[in-house]
Amino acid sequence: MKKIVSCILTAVLFSLFYPQKGWCQETIDLPPYRKSPVINNDSTITFSLIAPHASEVKLLGVSSSPILLSKSSEIPGEWYTTLKLRPNLYTYNFEVDGVRTLDPSNSYIARDISSLFNILIVPGANADYYESRDVSHGAVSKVWYHSTSFENDRRLTVYTPPQYEQEPDKKFPVLYLLHGMGGDEDAWNELGRASIIFDNLISEGKMEPMIVVMPNGNARMKAAPGLTGEGMYVPDAQYSVSPRGVFENAFPEIIEFIDEQYRTIPDKTKRAIAGLSMGGGHAWRISMMYPDLFDYVGLFSATVRWNGTNVDSDNNVLDASLQRQFETPPSLYWIGIGKDDFLYDLNQSFLSTMNRLNLPYLYHESDGGHSWSNWRDYLLIFTTELFKPTIQ
Amino acid sequence: MKKIVSCILTAVLFSLFYPQKGWCQETIDLPPYRKSPVINNDSTITFSLIAPHASEVKLLGVSSSPILLSKSSEIPGEWYTTLKLRPNLYTYNFEVDGVRTLDPSNSYIARDISSLFNILIVPGANADYYESRDVSHGAVSKVWYHSTSFENDRRLTVYTPPQYEQEPDKKFPVLYLLHGMGGDEDAWNELGRASIIFDNLISEGKMEPMIVVMPNGNARMKAAPGLTGEGMYVPDAQYSVSPRGVFENAFPEIIEFIDEQYRTIPDKTKRAIAGLSMGGGHAWRISMMYPDLFDYVGLFSATVRWNGTNVDSDNNVLDASLQRQFETPPSLYWIGIGKDDFLYDLNQSFLSTMNRLNLPYLYHESDGGHSWSNWRDYLLIFTTELFKPTIQ
Repeated sequence: MKKIVSCILTAVLFSLFYPQKGWCQETIDLPPYRKSPVINNDSTITFSLIAPHASEVKLLGVSSSPILLSKSSEIPGEWYTTLKLRPNLYTYNFEVDGVRTLDPSNSYIARDISSLFNILIVPGANADYYESRDVSHGAVSKVWYHSTSFENDRRLTVYTPPQYEQEPDKKFPVLYLLHGMGGDEDAWNELGRASIIFDNLISEGKMEPMIVVMPNGNARMKAAPGLTGEGMYVPDAQYSVSPRGVFENAFPEIIEFIDEQYRTIPDKTKRAIAGLSMGGGHAWRISMMYPDLFDYVGLFSATVRWNGTNVDSDNNVLDASLQRQFETPPSLYWIGIGKDDFLYDLNQSFLSTMNRLNLPYLYHESDGGHSWSNWRDYLLIFTTELFKPTIQ
Repeated sequence: MKKIVSCILTAVLFSLFYPQKGWCQETIDLPPYRKSPVINNDSTITFSLIAPHASEVKLLGVSSSPILLSKSSEIPGEWYTTLKLRPNLYTYNFEVDGVRTLDPSNSYIARDISSLFNILIVPGANADYYESRDVSHGAVSKVWYHSTSFENDRRLTVYTPPQYEQEPDKKFPVLYLLHGMGGDEDAWNELGRASIIFDNLISEGKMEPMIVVMPNGNARMKAAPGLTGEGMYVPDAQYSVSPRGVFENAFPEIIEFIDEQYRTIPDKTKRAIAGLSMGGGHAWRISMMYPDLFDYVGLFSATVRWNGTNVDSDNNVLDASLQRQFETPPSLYWIGIGKDDFLYDLNQSFLSTMNRLNLPYLYHESDGGHSWSNWRDYLLIFTTELFKPTIQ
């Protein structure tokens, strides 16, 4: 991980070419040039921070408990820690004398709800798919559609594969990819690294070129914070708790918009839906409610609770809905859950229902819990199975 | 500015609906619930931070010198300052005992080169255009085009107005909008608030619906850091110093790509180019080099130095190039500069050249220097003049 050049350095270089007084676009003094984190030759990682007056510096996020940094004996004011991390994408912060801070040497960040975290990718295994490569890149668009159900405009993230531009007459299948509670239309692309994963999988021929649509699944939210007339706020916690079934009921209007605006193949056999956690619950219910719309269903750590507004909580209704959906079984019905996920038991009970009804599915059980680490893995597995000859 | 709900709160609410053990998508302890900054009833602004062990906390970025925060006598560990700020968009940081940190209560940030800053918008005057409103929103896309000149794929930001979707048969004029040194294809939209400004101006009927294309103007860079095969790095300072003329020479291939992929009106009368600082220099040279391409030219604090690779530094060549461009004068040739800008004298000398050659232009002199505050203002003024009946 090469690191940081500040405005200061740029200004120095600028002045060589254009001998005027140095300048910065914003007049803020920047901290001294540091590298953090550094992946060392022996694959250990060193995190460091200059904090001369601190009495305690912690690293948060890379392990289950905070890691105390040590004072350097070589560099005045430096705190550091060196550790071994398995290949993955990590989100982390420092805490300096109780104040949470981003690593000032690392400008790569992701937002989770209203908190910001630095990103570190430790290469190897699946994490190699999380870093951008020199391959053809798809386009990522932030698009607004008008919802007649919600009576407002709502924001979507749309990925179009490189082939979308390269082959202007071709039509493409569509995956609808739904975020979890607390997330929004940016989540899959920021924390999930979705478009980078797609670029890499498509370039290797492992994933069919497809359009991927990532809506905002919060019924009480139109768009990520700061992008609506409510101003630059983080709304109260309720925004995320959708009135049950509202988002699900309104889902076909998203499909209608996408089929109108993009070169899609508007057919069940070329349409998939998947989601994580709350979004997994959405995908589960939407695919049941509209059995003619989706031929591929992915449930990632899904809240498979039957509580839509337009049905009873009666199990017979669930049975009937599933049986209706499986009259023509989906080409893929994929269920992934981590052994330590707090939704593990819930998912097992759903598997029992599937077994009792003798409905076909693919089950993927992983280590770990309710985490982006698992969801990125599931995305890698699931997307490579889409829109290919029936596998069941 | 309403503020922050953490994962903790979400989890609490989640548990009311779904009585399971609480969870967060990432297992990092979050700081206590704080509001900062707060716009008070008397229009003053209070910035605050909990830092119980700190001996000095500063606020950087809202004024020319750091502002010392005071220890609160009411809230244990709190530091604060209350001040009056003119309407504008501010980028700021805290510095706690010498460690630069983002405001943990404010998740709105922008990146400038490789540094991150919190954003605060103080409403009023032009700043009212910097906040998203409940109006129709255009789409913002991150798109890659293949450059035969650079022999690689390069990233663009493309804004399409709401009318682009609403009127599927309509074709649109195009503004090419170029960033400054140290910036990239994200700069105009992040620090410049471009798409939000466009949405607001278009909704008021003050700006013609148009496509706006924001390329990466660094010849040694393909895309913003982290999005290429070079990995998640901030490249050395040289990335920003373009070999002279390379970007300018290659510019027509961007236009070709845009005209191919979007519903443009591919005609000089419906094409504009503008840029800030280095990008102003780019716009200046490109519009001269290709006199048949642009009918509107905007030079914002531009580096109007004649140093392209395909011409001499001879003033006669500049004169001839300008005269060639003005054989049919552009509908608008707009020059904006701040009185305190380090490029002020350079721009005055260019105005002399324009006057000596008797070439028509509009000149806008503002207060202040080489700052985003001015460039956002210039954008507001310039875009409202585009693609309307000739004003000269």
